[in-house]
Amino acid sequence: MTGTVYLVGSGPGDPDLLTVKARRLIETADVVLHDKLPGPEILESIPAAKREDVGKRAGGEWTPQEYTNRRLVELANEDQTVVRLKGGDPFVFGRGGEEAEHLAEHGVPFEYVPGVTSAIAGPGVAGIPVTHREHASSVSFVTGHEDPTKDESAIDWAALATTGGTLVVLMGVGKLPLYIDELTSAGMALETPVALIERATWPDQRVAVGTLETIVDVRDEAGIEPPAITVIGDVAATRARVVDFLRNGADPGVSQK
Amino acid sequence: MTGTVYLVGSGPGDPDLLTVKARRLIETADVVLHDKLPGPEILESIPAAKREDVGKRAGGEWTPQEYTNRRLVELANEDQTVVRLKGGDPFVFGRGGEEAEHLAEHGVPFEYVPGVTSAIAGPGVAGIPVTHREHASSVSFVTGHEDPTKDESAIDWAALATTGGTLVVLMGVGKLPLYIDELTSAGMALETPVALIERATWPDQRVAVGTLETIVDVRDEAGIEPPAITVIGDVAATRARVVDFLRNGADPGVSQK
Repeated sequence: MTGTVYLVGSGPGDPDLLTVKARRLIETADVVLHDKLPGPEILESIPAAKREDVGKRAGGEWTPQEYTNRRLVELANEDQTVVRLKGGDPFVFGRGGEEAEHLAEHGVPFEYVPGVTSAIAGPGVAGIPVTHREHASSVSFVTGHEDPTKDESAIDWAALATTGGTLVVLMGVGKLPLYIDELTSAGMALETPVALIERATWPDQRVAVGTLETIVDVRDEAGIEPPAITVIGDVAATRARVVDFLRNGADPGVSQK
Repeated sequence: MTGTVYLVGSGPGDPDLLTVKARRLIETADVVLHDKLPGPEILESIPAAKREDVGKRAGGEWTPQEYTNRRLVELANEDQTVVRLKGGDPFVFGRGGEEAEHLAEHGVPFEYVPGVTSAIAGPGVAGIPVTHREHASSVSFVTGHEDPTKDESAIDWAALATTGGTLVVLMGVGKLPLYIDELTSAGMALETPVALIERATWPDQRVAVGTLETIVDVRDEAGIEPPAITVIGDVAATRARVVDFLRNGADPGVSQK
């Protein structure tokens, strides 16, 4: 007998934004493998007896990802029903694809359970739609933890700058100055609106806004820190038009509308 | 007294993929304004007495969008708690941004409740992660209902072709040959993997796979029809490596792995 592994997205952090299916699977699974990314509120809602933190369990022999892959197969072979809980959606910068391939290689049945991605929900709770009929016909998601000046960078910032759509950068608050340079060098206008959303949907969520020209100073003055989402494009200006009636709880002390 | 309007994403169609918050708001709201996009299973799960279909209610005087905007304000001014239920996420090609701006202009408080987007979940349930550490460092979402050969097309297909990331086209099964031409003309390789996911997460979900060169024939042979998602990029080949162990219920009769 082989147990099933559920690759489950936890959403951006608010437990109310778990899907009905994720909530049920967490309650019925034998084990929930997780790291810190689902956030404290969701992790605390899981019975402690079934929680297993694989974020800090890697020994000297394996990387955390290798350890997780190995542990998933091990538990399934013990006929356990396993939830692998991942922040956001498992297949958006979550290495869920690698886990799926590893499970298939080892003959373990698995199911993908999508989650609300913070790449969309983060801007959204700040009053920013990632697409807009008048302002953005496309949206691109990219990670910002890679150094854009490295030769081996797999991200073509110049191409992303020319799509004309919204650009959402995950995990990019630290390297903000580097990719802002890449985008402006590629011709993106300095007055392009930019917003930073820190800890989107968490109780201490904060939002700060500026332009490509000002956003690094805005970040430093507001003290915005990871985890944060960066949204770049005309849609970011929507926030100023709606924020007075938006009930998603952004901190007006940080926002500059 | 003014009621609150909740702009709520319903996810891709499976009622289990509603968020916990969406499920609760649907049950507690006075009125649920919807069109057909949430799909039959979710719509049937809402008490008939509170359902109001705004998809077919437009009279001669207003477009459906104008009618919806007007109706949202009207109900809020009657102190009703209103759920505006939208397929997927309200802020991804859903005109939720326009509705938010209309509500703010009329002094109506609103909250955005994100949903699982079919742009990510659609490929995912077919075993395709939209990003992958080895195959795709970015992902772009675009709608395919616009004619890409029109001069006034707002979508820069050539720029999207050169990002090196995954491209997901929503509502694009009809105009598939047109944008495939745009992408190959911009230099995207003919052997680039492509997958079509019809009615993602619905009971009658179907998947068909090919390459930029073959996908139009594959679509015609399989008879893939809207609503369907197109996913273009190396990640689409992941499906063949995992499908035998994937328990998301794709129809193997249509899939060519």
